[in-house]
Amino acid sequence: MVKTSTISIKTKGNCDIVDLTGKIQSEINKFGFDEGSVLVFVSGSTAGLTTIEFEPGLEKDLKEFFERIVPSGEEYHHNARWGDGNGHSHVRASLLKPDLNVPFKDGKLLLGTWQQIVLVDFDNRERTREVVVQISG
Amino acid sequence: MVKTSTISIKTKGNCDIVDLTGKIQSEINKFGFDEGSVLVFVSGSTAGLTTIEFEPGLEKDLKEFFERIVPSGEEYHHNARWGDGNGHSHVRASLLKPDLNVPFKDGKLLLGTWQQIVLVDFDNRERTREVVVQISG
Amino acid sequence: MVKTSTISIKTKGNCDIVDLTGKIQSEINKFGFDEGSVLVFVSGSTAGLTTIEFEPGLEKDLKEFFERIVPSGEEYHHNARWGDGNGHSHVRASLLKPDLNVPFKDGKLLLGTWQQIVLVDFDNRERTREVVVQISG
Repeated sequence: MVKTSTISIKTKGNCDIVDLTGKIQSEINKFGFDEGSVLVFVSGSTAGLTTIEFEPGLEKDLKEFFERIVPSGEEYHHNARWGDGNGHSHVRASLLKPDLNVPFKDGKLLLGTWQQIVLVDFDNRERTREVVVQISG
Repeated sequence: MVKTSTISIKTKGNCDIVDLTGKIQSEINKFGFDEGSVLVFVSGSTAGLTTIEFEPGLEKDLKEFFERIVPSGEEYHHNARWGDGNGHSHVRASLLKPDLNVPFKDGKLLLGTWQQIVLVDFDNRERTREVVVQISG
Repeated sequence: MVKTSTISIKTKGNCDIVDLTGKIQSEINKFGFDEGSVLVFVSGSTAGLTTIEFEPGLEKDLKEFFERIVPSGEEYHHNARWGDGNGHSHVRASLLKPDLNVPFKDGKLLLGTWQQIVLVDFDNRERTREVVVQISG
């Protein structure tokens, strides 16, 4: 059985990190899945998905890390071409990638206790993101 | 239903970025899939997969980014051992990873408008890559 | 058919890299799977999964790479909050991500000859890791 749904997430952009775990767990339970996996995928090329211990210290650490390895204030060829100033957002998103697969069993995501599924929005402005949640099992 | 096929891709190496979106969409339609996901996987340890807004500016930005964080001109222990000079290619590929999962519905990949599936070949020479396209649905 | 099992892996932490390929191939054969994919997932937020040519030179290269882009000796907000000193482990793990999907056919993982599935443990101490191996096909 495969169920594909979309959840809309408002973000502040600029490396905003949003915890999706509760919403995804709810989708699994709503459809009565027992064992399988969920593919989480963000449509768009300036956001990514990963897991993180979701606490304010690490949120800051991750933002500072991306700012250091892909600085927002540098020149990017993408900006010269399009003028939208989000070249750094694209590079960061291509590095983190838009997909994440998480297994579940007995209807429960097999995450660690301090491990949450997060959307990281790298764009340089507020966005409403469409996140695909596709459950197979 | 699961269908596994392989597509051969000629690359120039040296961070060459190749758009695979059209070929993957064709595979989905060829077999008549409606809803599910495609696992794209590159066999080999010097190439990776991600999504990108496929335009020449970003191609350059991504190449410059990888050159900056994993420089091709540095010393690598892998090179000392094997002498093939592609230690940087291995490190980059292990970071980007060889797998990508993309959901589809109504026979259509759920990508953003400016989001393409790309192979990034980090090796230091021309290669012919075998990319596995496995569709489930 | 979906089969979910867990393998326990002892690691030394500090970017220890452990080859899981043989164990995962065994799971596929044990259950008699022919065609499909395996989702490998590490529960916990200080470890990640990728593929690598598993040889001592590259192990060192990868460790040095992570030490350079996310240094262990710097200040992290996570450490200020929790005092467990593994802020760098969290950032590295969120970058590498906890999931990996590998396709198989005729009961054999479709890896390159010099491509192994590895667990990278970024934590700052020895750990016993629970790695989920979920096979679908």
